[in-house]
Amino acid sequence: MKKYSEMTPEELIEEKSLIEKRYEEKKSLGLKLDISRGKPCPEQLNLSLPMLDLINSETESFKCENGFDIRNYGLVEGIPEVRRLFGEILDAPMENVIVTGNSSLNLFYDLIAHAMCHGLPGGKSPWCECKERKLLCPAPGYDRHFAVGELFGFELITIPMNSDGPDMDMVEELIKDETVKGIICVPKYSNPQGISYSAEVVERFAKLSPAAADFRIFWDNAYTVHHLDFNGETDEIPSLLRLAEENGKGDMVYMLASTSKITFPTAGLAAVASSTANTADIKKILSFQNIGPDKINQLRHVLFFKNLDGVLNHMKKQADVIRPKFDTVLAVLKAELSESGIAGWNVPKGGYFVSAELMEGTAKRTVALCKEAGLVLTGAGAVYPYGKDPKDSILRIAPTFAPVSELPDAMEIFCLSAKLAAIEKLLG
Amino acid sequence: MKKYSEMTPEELIEEKSLIEKRYEEKKSLGLKLDISRGKPCPEQLNLSLPMLDLINSETESFKCENGFDIRNYGLVEGIPEVRRLFGEILDAPMENVIVTGNSSLNLFYDLIAHAMCHGLPGGKSPWCECKERKLLCPAPGYDRHFAVGELFGFELITIPMNSDGPDMDMVEELIKDETVKGIICVPKYSNPQGISYSAEVVERFAKLSPAAADFRIFWDNAYTVHHLDFNGETDEIPSLLRLAEENGKGDMVYMLASTSKITFPTAGLAAVASSTANTADIKKILSFQNIGPDKINQLRHVLFFKNLDGVLNHMKKQADVIRPKFDTVLAVLKAELSESGIAGWNVPKGGYFVSAELMEGTAKRTVALCKEAGLVLTGAGAVYPYGKDPKDSILRIAPTFAPVSELPDAMEIFCLSAKLAAIEKLLG
Repeated sequence: MKKYSEMTPEELIEEKSLIEKRYEEKKSLGLKLDISRGKPCPEQLNLSLPMLDLINSETESFKCENGFDIRNYGLVEGIPEVRRLFGEILDAPMENVIVTGNSSLNLFYDLIAHAMCHGLPGGKSPWCECKERKLLCPAPGYDRHFAVGELFGFELITIPMNSDGPDMDMVEELIKDETVKGIICVPKYSNPQGISYSAEVVERFAKLSPAAADFRIFWDNAYTVHHLDFNGETDEIPSLLRLAEENGKGDMVYMLASTSKITFPTAGLAAVASSTANTADIKKILSFQNIGPDKINQLRHVLFFKNLDGVLNHMKKQADVIRPKFDTVLAVLKAELSESGIAGWNVPKGGYFVSAELMEGTAKRTVALCKEAGLVLTGAGAVYPYGKDPKDSILRIAPTFAPVSELPDAMEIFCLSAKLAAIEKLLG
Repeated sequence: MKKYSEMTPEELIEEKSLIEKRYEEKKSLGLKLDISRGKPCPEQLNLSLPMLDLINSETESFKCENGFDIRNYGLVEGIPEVRRLFGEILDAPMENVIVTGNSSLNLFYDLIAHAMCHGLPGGKSPWCECKERKLLCPAPGYDRHFAVGELFGFELITIPMNSDGPDMDMVEELIKDETVKGIICVPKYSNPQGISYSAEVVERFAKLSPAAADFRIFWDNAYTVHHLDFNGETDEIPSLLRLAEENGKGDMVYMLASTSKITFPTAGLAAVASSTANTADIKKILSFQNIGPDKINQLRHVLFFKNLDGVLNHMKKQADVIRPKFDTVLAVLKAELSESGIAGWNVPKGGYFVSAELMEGTAKRTVALCKEAGLVLTGAGAVYPYGKDPKDSILRIAPTFAPVSELPDAMEIFCLSAKLAAIEKLLG
């Protein structure tokens, strides 16, 4: 079969009628399918249920290892054993870890609000006083990160993503501007492309010399243990905090993680690892904001996982649940789209998404066609700042939540819609 | 026995040597006592332990009443059943209740941060742009409230407390200044005096006409169900939100509450009830900050309490635990201090504190003497903005956490110290 770009108008019209017929057939089924959000499926959540049995009215002691009663006030930084666990997950000393909140997004938001209102160590003034503040946004990226930046009045600057991470030449150039206050990254199994930053890229991050003394790298390592095939290839990246500390630049780094997609979204834990000065600063602010995190839930998590090995064993079971879903998505993409030459996609080794790059100018139309046929997709453009995909070509596929039985239909609708949109575009 | 103020210097010197002897005896015991913080005691916490058994791996359904899986993302406003429960607690329609965070302090902080960064409904600009911003602080009050105001750069203005609430003449006068952005209140069983605002005072609050269109009443109803004697006298106050809505001024009100001192501090729930516009505004901001609160913990609370009656039955058991502690504190105060005429104190019908008003200029010295004899008290001045008690006379006694067996010693040390400080002062 010819690539669409090589077809004559007549051939395209013939192809269109074939695809339209299949599309209408699917549409007539009246399906209600959704591959729009990165949510764990019930089978994944079930794996964490035994955690809920570990602290109950029969529990003999409610003391954590430093003697605090986990049921009472105190320990804004979290109980020692959960700081140790997240220290292992994030590869950071436990003294530099604070466990609070329930998502890395939540911590990112609170850190930005803190910087806006009170300023950060090294800075001269609160960020709200910098009217021209800018946030660097490697993209495709996570829509909710960009939304937080926009809400707080940052100008969002798109940094193109290469296969080994953001365009570091551009980052190094842009940070010479002292109104550039930070960069928001998902460094491992990135949302949505599944890209893990190379060691070289991480090292370049650790050596950044920004003009703003309070410039920060928000390193949202949301998918650090989210390998898809524990027996196959997996990615590892160096600890940015450790590398930055070696360069005397530890204050530049906030490493974030959560158990949102390990245990229960919103009923999980989140953590931030940073330099000694940053950790003291966060702890100080937390002592105003709160009188401690939910330490019962923290101990519940520690009793369930014990250590990083426990987390990895658990994630292996999750991978077994969701790998067939990714396999289905990739198989349908390959079967339906590879010959037409209208799309490329990543084959992720971890994370929650498959990112498809469609023919320029067809992403929005594809989403509309999918919707018409009963498939909800993340909006076109969502993976870019301001929701504007410059080429209107990237779509994010989130296969984890839907039952595996629904994915063949969902992906067929996706591919047929992408093909129709491409033919419409080529026919002009 | 004569009042100290009526004693001759010789009599005072004789009294001093008697008190000193008793003080030194106590001191020589090397006690380590603490009545400084309003924390529930382990026996109170034990009452909530059965709650931890209600959701576990055997639970049949994890759906809340609108069909959401409580284990997954979503519902930033909280599950419907917990909004209903807090609607009953706060006397507000459930549609106007958002349940998130783990303490009313936490919600107060986040609301201030939100106002600072993004502004509030009715306002023209974020509060950070009002450089002269002021917060009215009825005092004696809660030190952590004042600390949040100070952290965010508000000028804190002390409003004297009368026996029926804040001096409303002063409040009504001060809000004519449009840089006065809010007032922070504990309207029922106030911290530390145990004062409940009268219906008349609440009505005057509901009719305030502030110059600032985005003026807010932060109504921290932290002790609304915390009666000390369910068979005796209890206080009730009207719903400020309902009254303000009647006057078309609902946007002025945030009513806050939490289960910090109902179930588990930091592992409990918090809620804010406000107008329709405010509720939509908070929900919007939450949708950036978070992807939902811990809905498992929310359902756990609902299953435990069912409704307001369940909460009140539970609080009755807590009252039975802590009432003897308050009785001891009040008995020792009466026995030791009433004749000397150097102190007054409130007899609270609820809440967590007894507030003592000592001879002017002796509070700091009393705290120091207590410390020397092994008793930790809340710092003198803590109940006033900036930690400065203009008369150096108010001390807060928090009797709940200490075992009842320790309270006679603790209170004897307190009274002896107050007496010594008074005699020193009188002798000059």
